[in-house]
Amino acid sequence: MATVRPKDDPESDPRVRAVFDDIRATRKTDFVNNLWRALAFDATLLERTWADVKALMASPTTLDPLTKEMVYIAVSIANACSYCVHSHTAAARAKGMTDAQHAELLAIVALAARTNHLANGLQVPVDPAFDAGA
Amino acid sequence: MATVRPKDDPESDPRVRAVFDDIRATRKTDFVNNLWRALAFDATLLERTWADVKALMASPTTLDPLTKEMVYIAVSIANACSYCVHSHTAAARAKGMTDAQHAELLAIVALAARTNHLANGLQVPVDPAFDAGA
Amino acid sequence: MATVRPKDDPESDPRVRAVFDDIRATRKTDFVNNLWRALAFDATLLERTWADVKALMASPTTLDPLTKEMVYIAVSIANACSYCVHSHTAAARAKGMTDAQHAELLAIVALAARTNHLANGLQVPVDPAFDAGA
Amino acid sequence: MATVRPKDDPESDPRVRAVFDDIRATRKTDFVNNLWRALAFDATLLERTWADVKALMASPTTLDPLTKEMVYIAVSIANACSYCVHSHTAAARAKGMTDAQHAELLAIVALAARTNHLANGLQVPVDPAFDAGA
Amino acid sequence: MATVRPKDDPESDPRVRAVFDDIRATRKTDFVNNLWRALAFDATLLERTWADVKALMASPTTLDPLTKEMVYIAVSIANACSYCVHSHTAAARAKGMTDAQHAELLAIVALAARTNHLANGLQVPVDPAFDAGA
Amino acid sequence: MATVRPKDDPESDPRVRAVFDDIRATRKTDFVNNLWRALAFDATLLERTWADVKALMASPTTLDPLTKEMVYIAVSIANACSYCVHSHTAAARAKGMTDAQHAELLAIVALAARTNHLANGLQVPVDPAFDAGA
Repeated sequence: MATVRPKDDPESDPRVRAVFDDIRATRKTDFVNNLWRALAFDATLLERTWADVKALMASPTTLDPLTKEMVYIAVSIANACSYCVHSHTAAARAKGMTDAQHAELLAIVALAARTNHLANGLQVPVDPAFDAGA
Repeated sequence: MATVRPKDDPESDPRVRAVFDDIRATRKTDFVNNLWRALAFDATLLERTWADVKALMASPTTLDPLTKEMVYIAVSIANACSYCVHSHTAAARAKGMTDAQHAELLAIVALAARTNHLANGLQVPVDPAFDAGA
Repeated sequence: MATVRPKDDPESDPRVRAVFDDIRATRKTDFVNNLWRALAFDATLLERTWADVKALMASPTTLDPLTKEMVYIAVSIANACSYCVHSHTAAARAKGMTDAQHAELLAIVALAARTNHLANGLQVPVDPAFDAGA
Repeated sequence: MATVRPKDDPESDPRVRAVFDDIRATRKTDFVNNLWRALAFDATLLERTWADVKALMASPTTLDPLTKEMVYIAVSIANACSYCVHSHTAAARAKGMTDAQHAELLAIVALAARTNHLANGLQVPVDPAFDAGA
Repeated sequence: MATVRPKDDPESDPRVRAVFDDIRATRKTDFVNNLWRALAFDATLLERTWADVKALMASPTTLDPLTKEMVYIAVSIANACSYCVHSHTAAARAKGMTDAQHAELLAIVALAARTNHLANGLQVPVDPAFDAGA
Repeated sequence: MATVRPKDDPESDPRVRAVFDDIRATRKTDFVNNLWRALAFDATLLERTWADVKALMASPTTLDPLTKEMVYIAVSIANACSYCVHSHTAAARAKGMTDAQHAELLAIVALAARTNHLANGLQVPVDPAFDAGA
């Protein structure tokens, strides 16, 4: 199922071809996963999304690559994005995430959800000590 | 505002006192923040919540302490828990998170939210390559 | 703060007056809380919302009144609606919710959030035994 | 999969029959989609849901029909309702949504999600200039 | 699909075996559903999750068993956890939930979602009368 | 409250100054709202966020400006972003949104939330007729 029809030959559009080529070169693989194939229904949407993903996830930055994938998984779980949980768990594994790290990541995500719901249920005022904006 | 009335003297209950003492000893501070003071309206709820937080966040585990706080912040943002975002951002700072790391964390959380909404809008099928369960 | 300006004299509009009168009569109180005062900026929106709330929450139905309020609180916590958590916790208290029931409600909401995030992180397939639609 | 068993002959119940007839007449089609077939397990729930949908989505109102469908899609994406994203994207297409409009809708939904998460991460106070309630 | 590979013989690990045995004994059935089989990839995660579920859902507490399941379903719907909605609806049916109760539960969840979104859209200030914390 | 300390003189950084100047020029106002002032703690985050907002919201595109703001409000409500609901409701008003349009927008958002929760509760399978991807 999907809400857009994937193009029969998306790379006949040179803008799509350029993005797919960059995905393959950056990731050093021939595999272009379904999200990019679906986004290819609109070249501008594809280009902007890939530019943002590449700048943060495929470039050396302050945080190490595995930490970034784990944060990505955490957000995707909380936002109930089935596709994203699958794709970023696979990416984290490819970057070395062990079973023990995976289990601990899930445990922390679940703990955060638990206390998020407690705090939202109690409607506790924020302690002044936590205010960085003063 | 809050949905429970904080007790006037919560530590007169020895079970509450024991948890508060453990929080102070574990964190090496006299400060017990509002979430724990609110949870003290029910000693069982307080004990179970603290036991889970201590086991994961205040004990040496596979992931390093700062990574755990950043994952916690990420989930709290996605679940729109204002209290939790404040308290865990303060905790991450206390564990050494720099402005550059904070900015990058927020950028990744925001990127994940962006692609979560794209994938949920496109309803893309999960690539078989991402299935670890086969 | 608010995104609409409350009317100075909302009950000068007879449609608003009729709804406010019905709220006061149904709830046996003079108090009309802020949500209804804000909704009064549009009489149709006010009428339809109140009709739905009255039909389910203020009428005898299959579930008892306190159970209904607790379900309402649970959804409001998960949807991070601060106003609704406050108003429905107050309503549940007025219908007899004890501290022990409140604590247990919060514990179950938090447990559900915990396993919701685990299941969404694991992306477990639904067991055929749970399918009522076959 | 589903959590209720669809009735074998739902239209043998005259209340269900009346709603299904109204759906077919309003939409000028013989097709009654699965959500209504599932809701038919309880005639009251079916009637009330259809009455609300018809009043807003199938009647001439202030906003044009395509804008209403796009708002509906946006909410359904953010709430991670796979069924609703599918059904309302199909409805928007039937009302003339082009690929370019669909792409731009998705881009705006994704941008809003991005800044929603940034603002919830920063916990910025609302500017007084945005307060309509004063 | 799943993000972890279920173990071929999970009960060869005595810690997993002990939890599965306790699940079967507590629930008086041979059936161990997929969530527990997936969690078995990490014995600690499995043990802690089951301990929490057992303490709240499989023990006599303040709230009756069916109310607890309905609250669980409500949270799972709002958090868009497909697996959890299926498993806890089946559990509620096993504990006696009738079609009429199920329909009313769904109606209240949907009503709460409706007013949650209205209140979050209006950004209404909380009435002082709802503040239990003063 | 906030999780970052706003800089005393953010425009002493020429990159921040350039973005603020562009915001003022694009919006034809001297007012730079708090979200941008908070994002200024990291010039890269500020630049990238503004570039994306400007490209979609401040440039002529397929959808008209008011429709874009209404979609933005809808997502912000569903994601429970208080700041964003305030700022984009003010923006929609500045672009001509009437009270009647605002009320109808809120009614549709609330209706979508209602049926999102019903569909997620029923776990209805997507009708093949809605599949655009085949």
